Amino acid sequence: MEYLKKCIEENATFIPPDVIKVDMFLNHMIDVDLLNKIGKEFCSRFSDKQGKINKILTIEASGIGIACVTAQYFSVPVLFAKKGQNKNVGANTYSTSIFSFTKNKSFEVFVSKDYLGPEDHVLIIDDFLANGEAVRGLINIVEQAGATLEGVGIVVEKGFQNGGAQLRSDGVRVESLAIIKGIENGRPIF
Amino acid sequence: MEYLKKCIEENATFIPPDVIKVDMFLNHMIDVDLLNKIGKEFCSRFSDKQGKINKILTIEASGIGIACVTAQYFSVPVLFAKKGQNKNVGANTYSTSIFSFTKNKSFEVFVSKDYLGPEDHVLIIDDFLANGEAVRGLINIVEQAGATLEGVGIVVEKGFQNGGAQLRSDGVRVESLAIIKGIENGRPIF
Repeated sequence: MEYLKKCIEENATFIPPDVIKVDMFLNHMIDVDLLNKIGKEFCSRFSDKQGKINKILTIEASGIGIACVTAQYFSVPVLFAKKGQNKNVGANTYSTSIFSFTKNKSFEVFVSKDYLGPEDHVLIIDDFLANGEAVRGLINIVEQAGATLEGVGIVVEKGFQNGGAQLRSDGVRVESLAIIKGIENGRPIF
Repeated sequence: MEYLKKCIEENATFIPPDVIKVDMFLNHMIDVDLLNKIGKEFCSRFSDKQGKINKILTIEASGIGIACVTAQYFSVPVLFAKKGQNKNVGANTYSTSIFSFTKNKSFEVFVSKDYLGPEDHVLIIDDFLANGEAVRGLINIVEQAGATLEGVGIVVEKGFQNGGAQLRSDGVRVESLAIIKGIENGRPIF
């Protein structure tokens, strides 16, 4: 996806050894035109699953905007896993623990059992794929629900970390719109 | 906004004394068709500010989807206040403390100074307005940045709590798409 790569080349910041900051256009300030292009591209990549995918699952917070704009192209609802239980979610939940390398701690995420079950065909969407912890947590929730995982759509994959390779070797269909293989002299290598 | 009121009447759950659960369509599972109707309505309500508003500010997590879909109708970027500092936001931030009655604790939110300044004309968007804590926190950040607040767009206002009345009496333009004046026999009174 050339437009996304251009955004990354022009606006992302790279902090050694492995931090890629895309907070100017993806996960703090959000370029909604870019989100539309991302949504169209996911729709194209998963065109064989159109009509089958009936729910997009993501995780708060950075995944939500991407998922909502993408969902317009699939005409399906979004469901987002919540961090930390509160009285508005209730006790009837699937939950799993996810380790965040960015925040250097584990956190629990929750999805209400009311909104995910064996009848669902799920596309997981997230902004980043690095070690794969967040995606594996969401897959775990899909499995707890007895739902079918149709695929995983990622905006930026850190190809130099092992999450994507492990998921694919486990048979998960992962479509990443930009794969950064490495960082050299502060610039991304696609 | 009749379609939203219908969604609330048919799908929301009311837990005495004051909890209104809209997690079936707004802040856990998200009806993206509804978000589009909401975005169009905000665009209509703030039509006099079109071309002036250049940024939509919201707060993670529930505000993000609404803000992103709404932003498509304003052709502006979204900026969302983050809860808890992490290494991807950096130290150069505006911050404020917000008390959450839902979670019964205060939390800090952050916005990078790189993305909000005196040149900005801001529309604040959020899912709920009850006591007004979140909106006041976001207004505080707009003020720290020296930006201009053009208005506040809220999906569901709890009219029986005092946040909306106080903001309006302070001269803030608040547009709420549904105002629930009270709950009687487990049903909303608009």
